[in-house]
Amino acid sequence: MLKNIDLSRKVAKKEYKSQKDPLDIKLAALQRRAFELKVPVIVVFEGWDAAGKGTLINDLILPLDPRGFSVDSTLPPTEEERLRPFLWRFWVRTPPRGRIAVFDRSWYRVLLNDRVDGDLKRADVRRACRDILSFERQLSDDGAVIIKFFLHISKAVQKRRLEKLRSDRVTKWRVTKEDLKRHKQYGDYLAATEEMLSHTDSDFAPWTVVEAHDQRFATLKIFNTVIRRLERRISALERSARRKPAKRKAKGIPENLRVSILDQVPLSQSLEVDDYRDRLKKKQKRVRELEHMIYMKRIPVVIVYEGWDAAGKGGNIRRLTQNLDPRGYEVVPIAAPNGIELAHHYLWRFWKEMPKAGHITIFDRSWYGRVMVERVEGFCTDAEWRRAYREINEMEQHMVDFGTVVFKFWLHIDPKEQLQRFESRQKIPHKQWKITEEDWRNRKKNKAYKTAVEEMLFRTSTPHAPWTIVESNCKRFARIKALNTVIDGIETRLRK
Amino acid sequence: MLKNIDLSRKVAKKEYKSQKDPLDIKLAALQRRAFELKVPVIVVFEGWDAAGKGTLINDLILPLDPRGFSVDSTLPPTEEERLRPFLWRFWVRTPPRGRIAVFDRSWYRVLLNDRVDGDLKRADVRRACRDILSFERQLSDDGAVIIKFFLHISKAVQKRRLEKLRSDRVTKWRVTKEDLKRHKQYGDYLAATEEMLSHTDSDFAPWTVVEAHDQRFATLKIFNTVIRRLERRISALERSARRKPAKRKAKGIPENLRVSILDQVPLSQSLEVDDYRDRLKKKQKRVRELEHMIYMKRIPVVIVYEGWDAAGKGGNIRRLTQNLDPRGYEVVPIAAPNGIELAHHYLWRFWKEMPKAGHITIFDRSWYGRVMVERVEGFCTDAEWRRAYREINEMEQHMVDFGTVVFKFWLHIDPKEQLQRFESRQKIPHKQWKITEEDWRNRKKNKAYKTAVEEMLFRTSTPHAPWTIVESNCKRFARIKALNTVIDGIETRLRK
Repeated sequence: MLKNIDLSRKVAKKEYKSQKDPLDIKLAALQRRAFELKVPVIVVFEGWDAAGKGTLINDLILPLDPRGFSVDSTLPPTEEERLRPFLWRFWVRTPPRGRIAVFDRSWYRVLLNDRVDGDLKRADVRRACRDILSFERQLSDDGAVIIKFFLHISKAVQKRRLEKLRSDRVTKWRVTKEDLKRHKQYGDYLAATEEMLSHTDSDFAPWTVVEAHDQRFATLKIFNTVIRRLERRISALERSARRKPAKRKAKGIPENLRVSILDQVPLSQSLEVDDYRDRLKKKQKRVRELEHMIYMKRIPVVIVYEGWDAAGKGGNIRRLTQNLDPRGYEVVPIAAPNGIELAHHYLWRFWKEMPKAGHITIFDRSWYGRVMVERVEGFCTDAEWRRAYREINEMEQHMVDFGTVVFKFWLHIDPKEQLQRFESRQKIPHKQWKITEEDWRNRKKNKAYKTAVEEMLFRTSTPHAPWTIVESNCKRFARIKALNTVIDGIETRLRK
Repeated sequence: MLKNIDLSRKVAKKEYKSQKDPLDIKLAALQRRAFELKVPVIVVFEGWDAAGKGTLINDLILPLDPRGFSVDSTLPPTEEERLRPFLWRFWVRTPPRGRIAVFDRSWYRVLLNDRVDGDLKRADVRRACRDILSFERQLSDDGAVIIKFFLHISKAVQKRRLEKLRSDRVTKWRVTKEDLKRHKQYGDYLAATEEMLSHTDSDFAPWTVVEAHDQRFATLKIFNTVIRRLERRISALERSARRKPAKRKAKGIPENLRVSILDQVPLSQSLEVDDYRDRLKKKQKRVRELEHMIYMKRIPVVIVYEGWDAAGKGGNIRRLTQNLDPRGYEVVPIAAPNGIELAHHYLWRFWKEMPKAGHITIFDRSWYGRVMVERVEGFCTDAEWRRAYREINEMEQHMVDFGTVVFKFWLHIDPKEQLQRFESRQKIPHKQWKITEEDWRNRKKNKAYKTAVEEMLFRTSTPHAPWTIVESNCKRFARIKALNTVIDGIETRLRK
């Protein structure tokens, strides 16, 4: 999902100034309170070369009481450090209760540099992820707040920054040959980073991607994230000391600082009718051939359809299945859970519907309801939807390990298009059933849903089961894109 | 540790009868309460063929309301089940809230039968363990109580039972060729079981080994375990509903039903002085050679000494190190944690002392204090010592993955021997410093310590870092045994 994140976001100088001072004061107060409550805090900075780690770390520590924090730079391990297990040098640097330890690069170094350089094999990656998760879970169980930032910039911006540094005699030395080499390997690092983020994101130590083109934006996001995480932990401790019930909802960071993925989706893409008819026929024929082939090879396929109301899920699914042999696929529509379903773990009803090897199951809405509608409407607790990202990733990993091909479509339309479709549905008698009061209510909560959707896309787009955003303002374009994605995915799997 | 467990334990008929009725009534009441509180309960029965699974499951369900539970037999997967991911058939059978699901064999089948038959490779074992842990954690996070029994019998008893079944015309059919084949592979299954128990034991779903030679003993142990686990969960739920603080301590199952490992340690083993001197010299010479070899090969070694007060740790360590090059080893004595250590995760101070590759670190007492003295004296919470087993196993796994050879010695003496040593220390002026008021106090808590030690030996004896029980009533014997163990372990490692 990294390449879908909108990196162009900026904060104007005036706005920055008005916001920054209160944040400084708040952060300093929280540091003192964390000290009193003996909460250890770990802040990890990872990110691209020239993303501005040094500057941003400096921004963060300036308002802090210098007696209460330490900054540790993680260089390649020394000879001395190589003589001990990989986590040793980080364990010995964990902060005592009440202090803040900032890590400039961290234990994740091994999953990026060593991974790309090929020093780390696939099995080692898995082992390193397992060890890191144990490490972070142990610290978190012991009361530590763990905040992990990945500073994200594009290859173009990285290039510009490296060139600027090199062109200046004073800063030239800061760009090493290794930096330039790594710049050339931007794509490899991007893949390694996606893998790292998805394998080490957890409810107890979640990742925050920081859009780092604009320093002011990045600083505000970092401050707000640290503040929210500290507030959440401190208020939980204070509540449990007073034995008071939890407030209904934990605040997140401000709307305007959150990851933005959907706004820059190129919704203007479209397809002419003739072109569409032509392609549709060909693609549908091909999908039917593939249906037969996966049946012969006993490959199970899962296709998840999620998207805005009126984005065209039904029509899209119909085009996908129109030509299929009905014995080979099933469409499972997911509504609100019934009594027996509510009496089980929320994933239970989806496990029940898993396709047999050789079959296709299409979910019209899915387990992602947990982190969208259930989150937004308060149908589950904060802790429940937060841990659902991991639970979902684990379930999909299990499917993929078994050999399942998993497609996940997010059908995206903009609010204007949605409004038009809602209105036209109300006008056309035979389409009125498609539009309910609830649709209008959900539309009003658009902002909250968007936040949930973008976090979902970010946290559950894994290398083994990535999301595909389907631009659906033009239904024809959307249908062909979905067909193409399924065809490509299955063909790739068959070649294995 | 399985082979160290005392399997000879019995309960007399009269005692059984007097205890069983109240347990039946209690269990039925707890089932109703769990139903009201909507707690799902999962009970897993694994164990040897002819261990009596069927009978024991029957005993368990008799007092239950039949509308509130189900019993599922896990056979080899059907054709239909093979077409779906491994966990699918278990997910769909998880109980709804308030019900009890009893599994006669379970998802662990794959780690035993498939493992021994060689259908499961090492990487698959790791993946299966990971998936099982995710599965159990997800259910537990969702409120399920997960109780896992392994019914343990010796190879001799298994043989006797199989023969008895075969000799009777009525029961002959029950012994299949596969049963006999598995009986011959008892040793392989034992190794696979040890591995399974250690990799899938967790604070949220711990294993209980049931000594199943005597049906009455086994039944009482199973009943008491289920009752205690349900009581613990129900009282936690009731407390949190009323917002009352936790009682200081959760009760465990009765003393006389707990795993017994130490009682049948053959403490009478001894060594004559001449023989001892002879061997000591040779072994010490060999250890010194090995010290040099591991230095050259950069192999780190960790040796943990734990044991009863006055068991002779100091003298044993001295004999081990007497002849070593002091530049190659270090003895780290562990006392109560100081202020800065208390301000960190309890494992922090041990991480700091990890040996460099090529060096030996000997811990005189260790991280196991968490699950012994800290548990017994209430220096940490129930949740803290319960999760410590996993944390310790994770840390040791990390060391071993790095190439470290880990030895863990439990120096065992009986209470009579301990008393003699205490008394002789008090009489001899230059030994008086060795005996304090605390030693006498600890001695009075002997029972509680024994429970803690036996649980520790069972839960942290892993294939990668097993415990060695050192019979120490005769100090000479103990010293030679420790030396031999270190020599064998390092030689094995060097051959790799």
